[in-house]
Amino acid sequence: MRVMLGSGGFRTPERVAFLVEQMRSFFGSIEYLLFVPYALADYDAYLDVLHQRGLDAGYRILGIHQADDPVAAVRTAPGLYIGGGNTFRLLATLYQQQLLDPIRDRVHQGMPYLGISAGCNVACPTIRTTNDMPITSPPSLDALGLASFQVNPHYYHGETLLRRGEELIPHFGETRDERLKEYHEMNSLPIVGLWEGGILRIENNQILLLGTPARLFRRGQPCLDVEPGTDLTPYLQPGD
Amino acid sequence: MRVMLGSGGFRTPERVAFLVEQMRSFFGSIEYLLFVPYALADYDAYLDVLHQRGLDAGYRILGIHQADDPVAAVRTAPGLYIGGGNTFRLLATLYQQQLLDPIRDRVHQGMPYLGISAGCNVACPTIRTTNDMPITSPPSLDALGLASFQVNPHYYHGETLLRRGEELIPHFGETRDERLKEYHEMNSLPIVGLWEGGILRIENNQILLLGTPARLFRRGQPCLDVEPGTDLTPYLQPGD
Repeated sequence: MRVMLGSGGFRTPERVAFLVEQMRSFFGSIEYLLFVPYALADYDAYLDVLHQRGLDAGYRILGIHQADDPVAAVRTAPGLYIGGGNTFRLLATLYQQQLLDPIRDRVHQGMPYLGISAGCNVACPTIRTTNDMPITSPPSLDALGLASFQVNPHYYHGETLLRRGEELIPHFGETRDERLKEYHEMNSLPIVGLWEGGILRIENNQILLLGTPARLFRRGQPCLDVEPGTDLTPYLQPGD
Repeated sequence: MRVMLGSGGFRTPERVAFLVEQMRSFFGSIEYLLFVPYALADYDAYLDVLHQRGLDAGYRILGIHQADDPVAAVRTAPGLYIGGGNTFRLLATLYQQQLLDPIRDRVHQGMPYLGISAGCNVACPTIRTTNDMPITSPPSLDALGLASFQVNPHYYHGETLLRRGEELIPHFGETRDERLKEYHEMNSLPIVGLWEGGILRIENNQILLLGTPARLFRRGQPCLDVEPGTDLTPYLQPGD
């Protein structure tokens, strides 16, 4: 199984170059990528943005919304790429289009899967560690389960400040670490808090962290900060 | 119907004093407040924090978890106070304890309702504008519907910066305004973006904004910034 998960925030030239480099090495020479734009409202505009920002990595992109039969499109795709946006909308549409089983089957058969942000969330067992607003109600929070652990994309810690004009004001809403602690009050899977610009590559039974540090959250244990290049496999075994 | 909704972030002495002043004028002389701590994991610790921070406003507080029969406790409470934490956990527990109808009935009969943060979210028609992580799955996102509009508590806009040591780094995750725009791509109710420390008082068929500015989001219209003291009623009529 070959799965690559990106945090999101690929918005600086350095980060885009890093993502492109990773995509080239992950997908290699492949005829095209089937792109799933369901996390945003305007699918065609999403494809345009992908090309404009260079996030296609030079690959030919086929939007799944352009296919007559999305399930058949998944069954024949040489590679799959699920983009970011709203995770609830993405998962609801995957359920509606009955795509979860076909995607899962194909990935287990070897089709490489790239998910960024919301596309990373839906690769986890559930979307219970998304940052997104529940603007719609998928039939379940259960997702693809390509990874055996949870990821929190766009992860950060430290003090949050808001700039209003020249002023910096503190924000008191729950911190991300508090939110992830709440997850572990009701759930047991380990979580990778993946900083923006970071990537996880799950290949050859190994989970490799690339590009940025990450913070690991495991129930009942202190959190652990790890550096890019770390093999996370030993840290991410399912908990109790 | 008398409903008071607070954004949260009542963490500075000035904000606590403002909330206490509002609570005193809202509840008046009342025998006790029935407090609902379901949004956090540790109910007793929540009561302690409430007293320590002065968020009891000097009232006698009865925790609903201390009552033998939570439904009966709601039916006889002179006033209800639902605190913040995780909105999904709060709503799931309200469903599990079959409290939604009893609370709704009592508020319609005149029992004053105070909801802060998650307690504000569940007073809306749905929890689709919460900022919280979906750590559990309530049977539905439909909530009390005491307000006819949505509130986004802990609202902010402007650039988000993270302080790591001495460094300030920009955050690229979806802005709050982008998330609320996504809500309107799939839903039509107007939303009040309520800054931390802000309060809405819904009384005498009037919706009064107090303490902070707010930003109003209405589908298909530009957003509108309003000042404290504004009667929001004309702006919050249900949309299409």
